[in-house]
Amino acid sequence: MSEGNVGSRLDQWLGSYAARTRGMTASEIRALFAVASRPEVVSLAGGMPNLAALPMDVVGRSLANLVAQNGPVALQYGSGQGDPELRRRILDVMAPNRVSAHPDDIVVTTGSQQALDLVTRIFVDPGDVVLAEAPSYVGALGVFRSYQADVVHVPMDSEGLIPEALSDTLIRLKRAGRKVKLLYTVPNHHNPGGVTLAAHRRPQIVEIARRFGVLILEDDPYGLLGFDGDPLPALHSHDPEGVIYLGSFSKTFAPGFRVGWAVAPHAVREKLVLASESAILCPSSFSQMAVTSYLAEHDWKHQVGLFRELYRERRDAMLQSLSDMLPTSSWTNPQGGFYVWVKVPDGLDTKAMLPRAVTARVAFVPGTAFYADDQGRDHMRLSYCYPSPERIREGVRRLASVIDEELDVQETFGTPGSGQRAGSSVDSPGPDLS
Amino acid sequence: MSEGNVGSRLDQWLGSYAARTRGMTASEIRALFAVASRPEVVSLAGGMPNLAALPMDVVGRSLANLVAQNGPVALQYGSGQGDPELRRRILDVMAPNRVSAHPDDIVVTTGSQQALDLVTRIFVDPGDVVLAEAPSYVGALGVFRSYQADVVHVPMDSEGLIPEALSDTLIRLKRAGRKVKLLYTVPNHHNPGGVTLAAHRRPQIVEIARRFGVLILEDDPYGLLGFDGDPLPALHSHDPEGVIYLGSFSKTFAPGFRVGWAVAPHAVREKLVLASESAILCPSSFSQMAVTSYLAEHDWKHQVGLFRELYRERRDAMLQSLSDMLPTSSWTNPQGGFYVWVKVPDGLDTKAMLPRAVTARVAFVPGTAFYADDQGRDHMRLSYCYPSPERIREGVRRLASVIDEELDVQETFGTPGSGQRAGSSVDSPGPDLS
Repeated sequence: MSEGNVGSRLDQWLGSYAARTRGMTASEIRALFAVASRPEVVSLAGGMPNLAALPMDVVGRSLANLVAQNGPVALQYGSGQGDPELRRRILDVMAPNRVSAHPDDIVVTTGSQQALDLVTRIFVDPGDVVLAEAPSYVGALGVFRSYQADVVHVPMDSEGLIPEALSDTLIRLKRAGRKVKLLYTVPNHHNPGGVTLAAHRRPQIVEIARRFGVLILEDDPYGLLGFDGDPLPALHSHDPEGVIYLGSFSKTFAPGFRVGWAVAPHAVREKLVLASESAILCPSSFSQMAVTSYLAEHDWKHQVGLFRELYRERRDAMLQSLSDMLPTSSWTNPQGGFYVWVKVPDGLDTKAMLPRAVTARVAFVPGTAFYADDQGRDHMRLSYCYPSPERIREGVRRLASVIDEELDVQETFGTPGSGQRAGSSVDSPGPDLS
Repeated sequence: MSEGNVGSRLDQWLGSYAARTRGMTASEIRALFAVASRPEVVSLAGGMPNLAALPMDVVGRSLANLVAQNGPVALQYGSGQGDPELRRRILDVMAPNRVSAHPDDIVVTTGSQQALDLVTRIFVDPGDVVLAEAPSYVGALGVFRSYQADVVHVPMDSEGLIPEALSDTLIRLKRAGRKVKLLYTVPNHHNPGGVTLAAHRRPQIVEIARRFGVLILEDDPYGLLGFDGDPLPALHSHDPEGVIYLGSFSKTFAPGFRVGWAVAPHAVREKLVLASESAILCPSSFSQMAVTSYLAEHDWKHQVGLFRELYRERRDAMLQSLSDMLPTSSWTNPQGGFYVWVKVPDGLDTKAMLPRAVTARVAFVPGTAFYADDQGRDHMRLSYCYPSPERIREGVRRLASVIDEELDVQETFGTPGSGQRAGSSVDSPGPDLS
């Protein structure tokens, strides 16, 4: 914060920025990266996929072949919509989630983050409402803020977004005359919630959105990373004309190529391509062909299975450690993905606690990062994707001692700054995710 | 157009789009790509760099090494600002253009197109004015339009942007109470103008912009591709606090990696990084490290020299062919880059002529694509970067016969639609670029 102020004082262009730029501030996660990347810190903060299981020799050979056989195409500009062969292969990748589409319905993007940006760009005017789960993905909240949307949170429980709460929120907003453009949701292995939208709720959510004329933006980076059974059918499968589905290779292959995609209704897809051409001309031909080669030459489904086992082992270590060492907290029970959402004892403030945690050599993301309002102080996101099971256990041990110390202080001196915190806790009770 | 209308009629989300989306329409260049890519057509339309001179074996080996030695980093998420090692190496690449900076001043982007998008995003509110040369780069005009800027063109002549015209335009806009946010300029080997801003004008342009408090956006993809002598010092070298400089590896290495960059004043750079994180999280680690490896392991300066010779040979073929076969037209005299800007005889309309040209198996871009208003009907852009010298000659031959036929028709029947065309020619005389 103080760094930003210093920059501002010296900024001769301060009077020139667009109104939207005021909403662009460094996220809490971003400030954390520098600290949490020190080797002595156990980071339960980041969402970096664990690439240890990737066969680097296979990838390296495949890229050398790509240049030898297709260099002049791979190194050249490509189509704004994305490589047709990759778009065909993406159909296979989405089949387990029952997203059925034509390659023409797909727009390849620079990671699914760019798809979030493009969808928001073409739909959201300043002051429009975007609905998002409470809590929601920090990167999506940043996009919505940068387009000056008003994010309204809708509560979740252990079965994901609550249909009645969605319906109530939409009625309330309609009465208030607000324009609701999008419902942003991560139905599978939610980030940061660690919950999955129940099968029976999916058609209900789609039906409510349709009734209110609200387009669903279904973000599904973790859909193939469920630990048990087959993936549930995507919201898209219930209403392809009412849902934009976002996928990504960042968690099932590698984020370093920045390849994601959107599946959209025909007319929307045309706008997305135009918006993407304006934003970047075209996605990287090389990255796209690297992914295509990998999908063609490697047993990618087996590889995803290896990732699942790797993350399941870490999820188990995380839940066991929490159960052993954090008796005063509660948490969600993730069946896939990267994250568990932890409720700390009443009166504790995870944002205030973070510097002390980092001093104790463990990092997490405070719950406030995942809300557009002031909710989340009594929650934190722990990620289990990257560290080894031993490191996860050690991290939770350190976290437990930090929480115990906080509780000691609270018991001895009363809740520090209790006025502020109790207020925020009444105003924003937070979702029932325990 | 009719395709768009059909899409609109079927679009259930038509009422949901943001106001800015109305400005997103397919560019004339885009519609051309499908047609011009047929092998029987000589395309003098596209701006694809010619990669024939690239040593594919070197590139392939370098990428295989990259994965073997640095796979887990190259395939992972990276920093939003870009790889520090690449940012260091970019300093060397900019040295001939006298852009001096610190690696911290650089933001790596997904091609310099993304830098155009990000700069416009952080500075431009709807209705703000962006100044651009007349004519200007079609991809930049698309970005400005998508942020609802009003583009005001400033005339060029054979020495580039005219300082007096810039000053007059700024005075006029100031009197009209308009907010001018950016001066967008391509000083070297202009696209599409094919001219270079004279050395003595550079400090004048910078001084005028400073006097009126207008930030300069200096787009320099062709700065190293001059055929004679050293590059002229960039506008940035005259006032680093008043200029954002954009560079790209698309023309000096390969566009397929989508790696470009912006050099910006410190506070602006911070905003650009935040905007980029919102747009794409981070640029591709793999692409950046591929470029870094190439710069480190290959004599890239020698390679740029090979590109220069390849383009010089094609420029010579183009100018000689024009001189031999288009006696009724005039054109600029490019000393580098990819393009020549051709003025056709009075009364001809290059946009109306294009379908007939494609029938005659030659493609170009009509001048209207390079204006935000209705100027340019009597101009066209010919690119000489991609086809062989023989194909260039054949393309100009076909073009000459199309123009001769148009002139015959005009002579026999009078200027077709002369009312409209004479009007547009009086309203928009176009720059003196012959």
